Amino acid sequence: MVNSHTVPEIIRHRRQKLAELIDFPAVLWSGGSSSRNFPANTFPFRANSHFLYFAGIPLQNAAIRLERGNLQLFIDDPDPSSTLWHGETPSREEIAAKIGADDARPMSELKDFLADAATVAVQDAPTWTQQSQLLDRWVLPRQLPQGIDLDLAKAIVTLRITHDEAALVELRKASAVSVEAHKAGMAATKKAKLEAEVRAAMEAVIISNNMTTAYTSIVTVHGEILHNGHYYHSLQQGDLLLADVGAETESGWAADITRTWPVSGKFSPTQRDIYDLVLAAHDTCIENIAPGMEYKDIHLIAAMVIAEGLVDLGILRGKPEDLVKMDLHSLFFPHGIGHLLGLDVHDMEDLGDLAGYEEGRKRSDRFGLSYLRLNRPLKPGMLVTIEPGFYQVPAILNNPKTRDQYQYLVNWERLEQFADVRGIRIEDDVLVTEEGCEVLTASLPTKAEEIESLIS
Amino acid sequence: MVNSHTVPEIIRHRRQKLAELIDFPAVLWSGGSSSRNFPANTFPFRANSHFLYFAGIPLQNAAIRLERGNLQLFIDDPDPSSTLWHGETPSREEIAAKIGADDARPMSELKDFLADAATVAVQDAPTWTQQSQLLDRWVLPRQLPQGIDLDLAKAIVTLRITHDEAALVELRKASAVSVEAHKAGMAATKKAKLEAEVRAAMEAVIISNNMTTAYTSIVTVHGEILHNGHYYHSLQQGDLLLADVGAETESGWAADITRTWPVSGKFSPTQRDIYDLVLAAHDTCIENIAPGMEYKDIHLIAAMVIAEGLVDLGILRGKPEDLVKMDLHSLFFPHGIGHLLGLDVHDMEDLGDLAGYEEGRKRSDRFGLSYLRLNRPLKPGMLVTIEPGFYQVPAILNNPKTRDQYQYLVNWERLEQFADVRGIRIEDDVLVTEEGCEVLTASLPTKAEEIESLIS
Repeated sequence: MVNSHTVPEIIRHRRQKLAELIDFPAVLWSGGSSSRNFPANTFPFRANSHFLYFAGIPLQNAAIRLERGNLQLFIDDPDPSSTLWHGETPSREEIAAKIGADDARPMSELKDFLADAATVAVQDAPTWTQQSQLLDRWVLPRQLPQGIDLDLAKAIVTLRITHDEAALVELRKASAVSVEAHKAGMAATKKAKLEAEVRAAMEAVIISNNMTTAYTSIVTVHGEILHNGHYYHSLQQGDLLLADVGAETESGWAADITRTWPVSGKFSPTQRDIYDLVLAAHDTCIENIAPGMEYKDIHLIAAMVIAEGLVDLGILRGKPEDLVKMDLHSLFFPHGIGHLLGLDVHDMEDLGDLAGYEEGRKRSDRFGLSYLRLNRPLKPGMLVTIEPGFYQVPAILNNPKTRDQYQYLVNWERLEQFADVRGIRIEDDVLVTEEGCEVLTASLPTKAEEIESLIS
Repeated sequence: MVNSHTVPEIIRHRRQKLAELIDFPAVLWSGGSSSRNFPANTFPFRANSHFLYFAGIPLQNAAIRLERGNLQLFIDDPDPSSTLWHGETPSREEIAAKIGADDARPMSELKDFLADAATVAVQDAPTWTQQSQLLDRWVLPRQLPQGIDLDLAKAIVTLRITHDEAALVELRKASAVSVEAHKAGMAATKKAKLEAEVRAAMEAVIISNNMTTAYTSIVTVHGEILHNGHYYHSLQQGDLLLADVGAETESGWAADITRTWPVSGKFSPTQRDIYDLVLAAHDTCIENIAPGMEYKDIHLIAAMVIAEGLVDLGILRGKPEDLVKMDLHSLFFPHGIGHLLGLDVHDMEDLGDLAGYEEGRKRSDRFGLSYLRLNRPLKPGMLVTIEPGFYQVPAILNNPKTRDQYQYLVNWERLEQFADVRGIRIEDDVLVTEEGCEVLTASLPTKAEEIESLIS
């Protein structure tokens, strides 16, 4: 049954590497689809990322058992009556050959192969319920794994935190399509009346390439709402449009890009000042990315560049280093500089901070650092986002306590002159290499003039 | 708190009508979002349809309690820290005013208002688990309701099965955008290399209008796979492209349209023969839609037209009425003529056949009728799809048993001449009126020449 030609050698190699890290079997479920408004009307199926990493293809209602580099597949043959609705689907044996399984059985036999097996919880309730029942312990998607499940999770993090060549092929595809999506968004802006129309132009590129969005797109003239999922605002001449849109390949690998551009095709002088400042933070961070560098320090570099720039613009008063220590930068840049990227847009966030935080480190209580999603020294093969931003979040800046506390450190009158800059973010996907780094999304311009030239 | 200007009078009227049908309180949950690959990465939220019907807007993690026409809203005020990520969201009081609630409380108080209350299960597990816990009985989305829950479900079916003016406004919006989506798909066909590109052009229209797809789009040159959810096939000159794509408005109302068109812009003679036959079935069904007519008879009219046409084309042999009795038509038209349409694309299918089947009627064992989703006499205000089709499903036609059983009734050699007709479906959304019916999607042509003229 083994067919080494159908599954890339490198995916087989992942299984071998896992076997070097754990001495117990691992069983990974793919998950099932989730119903939308009635059982037969489901959201598009997304297989569990850990399953995808070792199986390579998005099977539904399947499980794989990994032990000493061997793979056992558990999946039911398609119901003959489903052929009418879904066409000829591959048999268990055909799938087994495709993913290079050493053995293949119906799901009903899985229960006989679970002794001492570790797992990771999937997101959909029917499947994690099945995981819990079959393993006779709670396997919950929002709870940190325990015991051998924790050991398995740590082993998977060790593998997935740096990307192999097969992963990079897919990640580059996702990046390339996302770059095209952003260009299409820029090109659609002048004709568009609503945010939704720009979103449509961008997602059409992703759909055209038979990919899906890796996360809910943000396409908004209210970039100050960080996770804005609405698209009904009209586009006005003086607006900046912030678009955070990324594609995901069929096998699940993601890209994550943000650009901010002027609806009119021309930044106002105040918009340009802040844009260039955010871009300086972005560029300085990327210049500093190299193996051994602490990602937290990359974050602090962004904070420093932003603080310096805001002092230069007369918005903040004081020494930049002091301002950063007091988290003054985070009045305007309240989130972290980025996160891991891979099969998940926040890679392995289903494991809490296990992937994002080096063992022994914990989230900071400091407002300026509490949203940092990654706190590890960088290693070649890691893919991270770099996404500094500047936002005038009313909930932060209009808070009387903030106004009172920072009445001298912030020049509130000067800030009012920047009222047309509600939200700017510039985000790229950066691969740590032996030599330093490679920006996978570099073919999408960041410089203000180049962005302006793409708006039509 | 009551504000009669913000909630349409007609939605308030729905609550009054429910009060005339039940003498116990009803509590409807809106549901929550479902996680995709990690908890924070969710599928787009879709509120429960019954909730939407009585509340009018898609609130998340909320419940409404309806009793004697009064509405109590249960929802938590937004977490202050969420303002940073999601912007200013309306307070409980503001939402209450908007939906015309008589009272509004936090979710924690819901438990005190559940005595003798009926409910309907939502689809997402965290919410139906909460429903089950709070009501102290199983409330399961895939199980037919029992007791007062069944009484409530029947009352809701009584209301939702015909559409009021507020519903029709939304349904017409969904239809209009879906018509534009299909035209965009036709216009994008000649330049497209892949099914995915046509899908992108169609869904871009839906996204542009700040709507969503009401169901997973089918855009395929393999229309013979009835629920084909793949888009990777390349478009070849001789192919027919089948597109079953419908929009859903922000408040949840759906459209459902299918057209089938030639990739080249010109039907082949064999494709044209079968297309005209399917269109004749479509038109004859619509001509016969009127109050009092049995929907099952509409289905049988389609079966008869198809059987007659296939006899005329020399594909079937025998008397059409005999062939229909023997289900010969369903070798090529294996599904039902359509279904209810409303807030759900298969309206109220979350209640099983409760909405689709008149009380006392059950699904038929006959192959030709078992997939009929609607079996009721038609009433003014009902919205149904009419979607006859012709498919050469390999699982049916290549089955040696079928070949043997129908060796004389099917002219298999003649059928081979129609090999370039793998799947055709023509689907419109038809409102039953006092006078007969109105095709909501009539602005999208159905005639072969008109379709051809739209392909570019």
